Amino acid sequence: MVKIDLNSDIGESFGRYTLGMDDQIIPLISSCNIACGYHAADPMVMDKTVKLAKEAGIAIGAHPGYPDLMGFGRRNMVVTPEEGAAYVTYQLGALYGFAKKHGMKIQHVKPHGALYNMAGKDYELALAIAKAIQAFDPELICLALAGSQSVKAARDIGLPVAQEVFADRAYMPDGSLVPRSRPDSMITDEKLAIERVVRMVKEHKVTAVDGQDIEIIPDSICVHGDNAKALAFVSEIRSTLESEGVVIASIEDVLKQ
Amino acid sequence: MVKIDLNSDIGESFGRYTLGMDDQIIPLISSCNIACGYHAADPMVMDKTVKLAKEAGIAIGAHPGYPDLMGFGRRNMVVTPEEGAAYVTYQLGALYGFAKKHGMKIQHVKPHGALYNMAGKDYELALAIAKAIQAFDPELICLALAGSQSVKAARDIGLPVAQEVFADRAYMPDGSLVPRSRPDSMITDEKLAIERVVRMVKEHKVTAVDGQDIEIIPDSICVHGDNAKALAFVSEIRSTLESEGVVIASIEDVLKQ
Amino acid sequence: MVKIDLNSDIGESFGRYTLGMDDQIIPLISSCNIACGYHAADPMVMDKTVKLAKEAGIAIGAHPGYPDLMGFGRRNMVVTPEEGAAYVTYQLGALYGFAKKHGMKIQHVKPHGALYNMAGKDYELALAIAKAIQAFDPELICLALAGSQSVKAARDIGLPVAQEVFADRAYMPDGSLVPRSRPDSMITDEKLAIERVVRMVKEHKVTAVDGQDIEIIPDSICVHGDNAKALAFVSEIRSTLESEGVVIASIEDVLKQ
Amino acid sequence: MVKIDLNSDIGESFGRYTLGMDDQIIPLISSCNIACGYHAADPMVMDKTVKLAKEAGIAIGAHPGYPDLMGFGRRNMVVTPEEGAAYVTYQLGALYGFAKKHGMKIQHVKPHGALYNMAGKDYELALAIAKAIQAFDPELICLALAGSQSVKAARDIGLPVAQEVFADRAYMPDGSLVPRSRPDSMITDEKLAIERVVRMVKEHKVTAVDGQDIEIIPDSICVHGDNAKALAFVSEIRSTLESEGVVIASIEDVLKQ
Repeated sequence: MVKIDLNSDIGESFGRYTLGMDDQIIPLISSCNIACGYHAADPMVMDKTVKLAKEAGIAIGAHPGYPDLMGFGRRNMVVTPEEGAAYVTYQLGALYGFAKKHGMKIQHVKPHGALYNMAGKDYELALAIAKAIQAFDPELICLALAGSQSVKAARDIGLPVAQEVFADRAYMPDGSLVPRSRPDSMITDEKLAIERVVRMVKEHKVTAVDGQDIEIIPDSICVHGDNAKALAFVSEIRSTLESEGVVIASIEDVLKQ
Repeated sequence: MVKIDLNSDIGESFGRYTLGMDDQIIPLISSCNIACGYHAADPMVMDKTVKLAKEAGIAIGAHPGYPDLMGFGRRNMVVTPEEGAAYVTYQLGALYGFAKKHGMKIQHVKPHGALYNMAGKDYELALAIAKAIQAFDPELICLALAGSQSVKAARDIGLPVAQEVFADRAYMPDGSLVPRSRPDSMITDEKLAIERVVRMVKEHKVTAVDGQDIEIIPDSICVHGDNAKALAFVSEIRSTLESEGVVIASIEDVLKQ
Repeated sequence: MVKIDLNSDIGESFGRYTLGMDDQIIPLISSCNIACGYHAADPMVMDKTVKLAKEAGIAIGAHPGYPDLMGFGRRNMVVTPEEGAAYVTYQLGALYGFAKKHGMKIQHVKPHGALYNMAGKDYELALAIAKAIQAFDPELICLALAGSQSVKAARDIGLPVAQEVFADRAYMPDGSLVPRSRPDSMITDEKLAIERVVRMVKEHKVTAVDGQDIEIIPDSICVHGDNAKALAFVSEIRSTLESEGVVIASIEDVLKQ
Repeated sequence: MVKIDLNSDIGESFGRYTLGMDDQIIPLISSCNIACGYHAADPMVMDKTVKLAKEAGIAIGAHPGYPDLMGFGRRNMVVTPEEGAAYVTYQLGALYGFAKKHGMKIQHVKPHGALYNMAGKDYELALAIAKAIQAFDPELICLALAGSQSVKAARDIGLPVAQEVFADRAYMPDGSLVPRSRPDSMITDEKLAIERVVRMVKEHKVTAVDGQDIEIIPDSICVHGDNAKALAFVSEIRSTLESEGVVIASIEDVLKQ
């Protein structure tokens, strides 16, 4: 039986500001990444989000970002590996507070935005983050870009790691994502995107931009719930995968298979 | 054998800014209250502070405050009990991250500044905070102003509580602190202040502003390490207490006696 | 010819977060209060908002708030009059930067949320804020709650002041707003609300909660553009006023009449 | 008569945190760069700092930085030119508020830390900042690293610009600073540093790391007032320059010569 996780970022509201359609994306996914107060979310939002995830029975993960609320954690910031690690420890601990309150276990950690991207390319930063996660709980799973430095760093220290793939992104021959600056970075044809996802999940293969097939072993597919169109796409991915016999399961379940 | 705890706020630096003389106050105290990023401190400071406390062998506590870095958490903010509780959960969890990293146990929680003062007078806020602490870990000790609503709320739900007294503050006949707005709020004579501390610790009595003796049962004395004069005063309190046969011990030890 | 201003808070988005329907409320009003980065808005939002207001030909005002983004500036914070004044100077200056860029003149200053409410009741705070506005530009208009301490303080130092009324709020016999904690604080009947507005504008009278008529002299009516229902209500207020021969004009125009 | 400006960053305290020895460095300099609330300072600090500068009779400038209080604005952040420009407009306007209050004129703008460094190398960012300064007031002077993209961008749009040099830094043959990562980036010999300053000011020449003399035309020398040693060094630079017949004057005066 083939299993795959569907993960999405949730809990990104802040104070008077509402973002995302959390109550609608949650029923479609098996794991969620909860913002921890740096790039988004405040304590009231985190409390409510953990409760929502618990009621829906999905697994939760910490989604720590850069201390850049104004830029939503999407702007590269040149921090030291020690700083990056300390930001992860702080935010992971903060989410743990709410997980404890609601009797939930934190399944994984997925850095957000620019922190995710920079760690994915910078082994030292990735290693510092992996060690911070491991120091908190050695059974926590690092959710990282398939083939990235984050995956390598986690494996190097024996931290459980799950590889994430994207339905709507094109891949380079070396397995990295085609940079967004290139015109061919996105898979805009939804039907094709879903076919690619199914093939990645069932055959561990994807066609790179140069036309050749490359190997990719996904544990989780990143999906979005920002708008109605995105939600419909996730619904379509989910039902297609299920009709293909794939079981949607938490990252923990996927890694055990 | 009479035991008493000496506690002080530490870890209040932030980024480029240094505050307090942590390395000098730490050897003089038995418990410390570590800022958690809202009124002071950042993740790098918290990491370093927990490490310092561990090396010195003193007990650590979370020192959560209002989200008011500009006002150092000293300005009253009208938040709901739910908000106050969520801020405590967030900051307590964040400190837990660093405690976990350094293999330390969090002994207690002492709200900071305006949050401490407002909870001390507002039972609903105090109760929400006490429940937040208990939900995180029912063995955590709430360090609160002797005779305050925070003590009452903690006791009402069975949360361990330690009563805090101040060497340099005068007391009202009902056991509350003389408001700072009154000219007789402070005990400025250091010799007298220390005599009062010894009597509170050994006889559970203090002379109120109206001249009558009132009962007070201290578990911990709050001291400051901001400047050389304050440090000398703490040193004097400590040596006087020890020469009087009082043992300086962590809050946990004091509560067990 | 009777003139009245319609004012609304706009420019309250922040980073990735969008709030309000600015492009739809702007055509319905004559003056806008632009958030200045403390309770809401960031520099990019302010830039865009001033540009929108300019294109629509409406007058702009600064809308300074408490440094409490998490609470949207709606939570009472106990600051000194000096702090309140400094926050107004800072935010007013910041908005001036964008006004200068777009060749706009700042017409007025209206403190936001809790700062508006607290200054309305605290003469010392109101006076400090009025002086801060006057020091920046003595021709700036202070937009304040009719009958409040803010109006009194502005008048005492000769700062131009415009009185603001609310269509959806009930009034006490002394002209103050019925506290929101009371069940009769809001005028929920929209038809009645509009009738009251017309009477306030044309007859300078409103019926207080105890049934007696009191005098009120409005220069500006505060309206909201958060949702479709609110927009429809503003549209209705505007067309009714116009059909009654009232001219919708900027605060500056209203004060000159 | 040869004139040169001595500039220093001041007003970098924040809330409860004190930084720098502003009252001691101010008498030694002719222009100061005042933090504007993003990387350091709060409105109360800005108010006090403008007042201090006014009393000392030195010229003031805005010192806008990245919105990164935790990193003191020293960490590179990848913002768009529009964002960088908007941050400058916001902070420049905010300082203008306090300058207006104290009857002071803003002489110049010098971006802080990472914003200064990044603009110095990135023409698009430098140009956007120069345009923001010019839109605020076309007579404002841009204080920038000698030979940098910031100087080029300001000149390209006709914005007055002053070139800044460093007493304690070594120069590359192309006039750029030797990167701090190199062991020979600093001039640690104070006597040599002062000789180099005098030569830059009087002869417009400095010896680069490769031993050859290069041309450099300084308008202002950047000095620091963080500690006693730094202050003594500034004092020495000042008295040496004066004994060499150089007049210490504001940037405005220097540019007029």
